[in-house]
Amino acid sequence: ARPRVGYFYTGKSGANLLAEKLKKLQVKDFQSIPVVVNDNVSVYDAICTMFLEDVGTLFVVDNQSLLVGVLSRKDLLRASIGKQELTQIPVNIIMTRMPNITVCKKEDLIIDVARILIEKQIDALPVVKEVDGGFEVIGRITKTNITKILVRLVDDDIM
Amino acid sequence: ARPRVGYFYTGKSGANLLAEKLKKLQVKDFQSIPVVVNDNVSVYDAICTMFLEDVGTLFVVDNQSLLVGVLSRKDLLRASIGKQELTQIPVNIIMTRMPNITVCKKEDLIIDVARILIEKQIDALPVVKEVDGGFEVIGRITKTNITKILVRLVDDDIM
Repeated sequence: ARPRVGYFYTGKSGANLLAEKLKKLQVKDFQSIPVVVNDNVSVYDAICTMFLEDVGTLFVVDNQSLLVGVLSRKDLLRASIGKQELTQIPVNIIMTRMPNITVCKKEDLIIDVARILIEKQIDALPVVKEVDGGFEVIGRITKTNITKILVRLVDDDIM
Repeated sequence: ARPRVGYFYTGKSGANLLAEKLKKLQVKDFQSIPVVVNDNVSVYDAICTMFLEDVGTLFVVDNQSLLVGVLSRKDLLRASIGKQELTQIPVNIIMTRMPNITVCKKEDLIIDVARILIEKQIDALPVVKEVDGGFEVIGRITKTNITKILVRLVDDDIM
């Protein structure tokens, strides 16, 4: 048989080519604005903030604006069926606290974040920047952001 | 120039090929098991079911097992900060009810469901089957399912 000059089999199907691109997407290009509350606000106020801002996850910061906790709708719902007066409980009693918070950085890969969201069964990760003494929250990445990426992939609006 | 026999330019890049496949994925291959409650249970019981089953959305059915409502964590959280006793309020007071419920069928396309979840800002759709007098709930499709699809795309586990 004649050699086929100018034709090379790369071993990659069309699907693989897109997967390669998908693997390179970074958090910074798809993140949302974070919604934060101070760690001394009440559970009641946190629930109101969640409704006003229409988000599923709040990040809790201390007076130095450092990340100290995360509040999901689930955390707030659990607290709200308790017997205590919600205006009297500070969020730092019920939040998930450092070092049990999974964070990501803006250069991290979307695909790694997607895996973490699935594995840890959480809805959102804070995007953080390391500063003296801890993390500053600079973004939020959620299953909604991931769902939007899938739509943009199909609309060919991303690659 | 010599004609290149056996080589055809389809006008499609690798990315487009995957997008074409992505467009064909159907709900039935990715849906989760639905969690339903009867429309006469209390908001308190619904919250407990949500925690026990660890889901973000409950579907509400009548005594004929027909879909009559949807309860999100947001709906339950809103009810829980009210002044009423949660064990005394039936879920049908606070649920989103037919015909305001967006549903999908098992043959529907994942990409269409993803667009609806984004547009309507909801976390899950019931997968339904038409029966006499209404819809029977046969599945649940969520932003978690969509996120898993993105991971499987990269792992080349889907196409």
